[in-house]
Amino acid sequence: MRCRKCRERAVLEIPRHHTAFCKTCLTDFVCAQAERAITEEKMFAKADHVLVAVSGGKDSLSLLDILHKLGYQADAFYVDLGIGEYSRQSRAKVEQFTKARGVALHIHELKEDEGAGINELADLVHRPTCSVCGTLKRYHFNRTAVELGYHVLATGHNLDDEASRLLGNVLHWQTEYLDKQGPVLPASMEGFAKKVKPLFRLAEREIAAYAIVNRIDYIVEECPNSKGAKMLLYKDILNRLESESPGTKQAFYWGFLAKQEADAKTRPSMTDNDQAVLHPCPTCGQPTTAETCSYCKLMARAKKDGPAPVRM
Amino acid sequence: MRCRKCRERAVLEIPRHHTAFCKTCLTDFVCAQAERAITEEKMFAKADHVLVAVSGGKDSLSLLDILHKLGYQADAFYVDLGIGEYSRQSRAKVEQFTKARGVALHIHELKEDEGAGINELADLVHRPTCSVCGTLKRYHFNRTAVELGYHVLATGHNLDDEASRLLGNVLHWQTEYLDKQGPVLPASMEGFAKKVKPLFRLAEREIAAYAIVNRIDYIVEECPNSKGAKMLLYKDILNRLESESPGTKQAFYWGFLAKQEADAKTRPSMTDNDQAVLHPCPTCGQPTTAETCSYCKLMARAKKDGPAPVRM
Repeated sequence: MRCRKCRERAVLEIPRHHTAFCKTCLTDFVCAQAERAITEEKMFAKADHVLVAVSGGKDSLSLLDILHKLGYQADAFYVDLGIGEYSRQSRAKVEQFTKARGVALHIHELKEDEGAGINELADLVHRPTCSVCGTLKRYHFNRTAVELGYHVLATGHNLDDEASRLLGNVLHWQTEYLDKQGPVLPASMEGFAKKVKPLFRLAEREIAAYAIVNRIDYIVEECPNSKGAKMLLYKDILNRLESESPGTKQAFYWGFLAKQEADAKTRPSMTDNDQAVLHPCPTCGQPTTAETCSYCKLMARAKKDGPAPVRM
Repeated sequence: MRCRKCRERAVLEIPRHHTAFCKTCLTDFVCAQAERAITEEKMFAKADHVLVAVSGGKDSLSLLDILHKLGYQADAFYVDLGIGEYSRQSRAKVEQFTKARGVALHIHELKEDEGAGINELADLVHRPTCSVCGTLKRYHFNRTAVELGYHVLATGHNLDDEASRLLGNVLHWQTEYLDKQGPVLPASMEGFAKKVKPLFRLAEREIAAYAIVNRIDYIVEECPNSKGAKMLLYKDILNRLESESPGTKQAFYWGFLAKQEADAKTRPSMTDNDQAVLHPCPTCGQPTTAETCSYCKLMARAKKDGPAPVRM
């Protein structure tokens, strides 16, 4: 198989675009798709300071790499969840990557700041680990971006992530979540950082190929807590649909975005509704629609229920 | 495994309802679900004359059987598509079933009235067979119900049919089709019969079990044209999701219906929009939103392009 652009040996076929690329043209393609997402969706400009949430996996480290290649100013933020060997390895990958390239790295350590790792915290509050993890990461991503004065927080979510999340939300008609599925969530006066997903136009396998071709040393293992997760099932199902009809994921997620845009003209979005009732959490000052923010509620419960020393 | 109602030997486990039924209780359950659909969705009353579109398969013959058990007045309508042995067998099943129970049966024969079977017609107009078949069946179902003075046309679509169609429409965000996915389409002054799906609360395997238990002799083979059809792939995917999380199909389709109902309060549905522009087709008098109805367009094209004698 030959590259459709330069006739070199191809390393990846991309059926949804009826094309195939060599190493160099694949890198160009991935960077061009990210650049297109950033400019078309008005995510950020060259003068902005971007904080990239990194996990040590292929998507977030590739995102950092791509942003630097494109000439953006991007630093890294890592949340150490304290999941034994998995966290040790992923943190090491992040530290190696940022050190080798002279990228500023901020770290939030759960065991130090919340007094326990994610598994212990989830046990303490009797909630599923992935749900507690989501709450904590969203909280610290936002808080760190705002407190350190970054213009925008970027995550490495790709097309597969977004399409599988959409499938899950659509199967249960989670209208509230559907309204927050876009690749850009605007900043709010109340203290929400702007959040963007520059890789939403790229499939998981395209980014995996980018990472390998560009010799990015990432953690290959999935988080041990994700075993049997619904998202993996949804990804698997979308991969089956994609192999039968290349372009399905893209049509599904992009079609949804187009529909949301059309709908937004006739009715206020949930995001608008939220902003109408946002106020600072009385405990931590972060924005919330509830009386106390979900992070502080979680930590209060962990402190109350738990035998472990949980700091606030 | 024992029946959860009467402790007889169970013939079917129904995980989404956390239950299992014996022959008698399964029949009661299926009839109760159909009755609930008919009354809650205001489909029809005991005094109404119902025309059931039958294919010879388990769903439509079970529907006829259920409606009679429940005391409704229901006749049968069969479209002979002229698909060789498949049509001969399915027609024989319909004729045996209706004759044995003294049910009035109306038949429309494509080879006689349109001058060719469905495969030849699809070839003549260069369109996919399943698409031409859909146009022709919808046309004749409606026309026959209206011309023979039936109050309502009922089809045997079950939960699997509706959920897989919904999945296909959602994957491509076919908004126009999404608006017509409900179990009831109202009649219109312009000549559309009311159309209902009394089995929409029942899964395919529940109706298959009902048909077997009630000794309904139906055609087991799928239509030979449906091989590789997208709907079968979607059904397969939904079955996988259902086996991982019983209740997924139901939550998906019923949740969609609830959302549509909520949305309808804030904006006119596509059905309302359609009714604003409906007028009689100048060729056949049936209602259409286009200049000529899709059936007459199709037949005109078949007549023009084809060497076969196609009657209008």
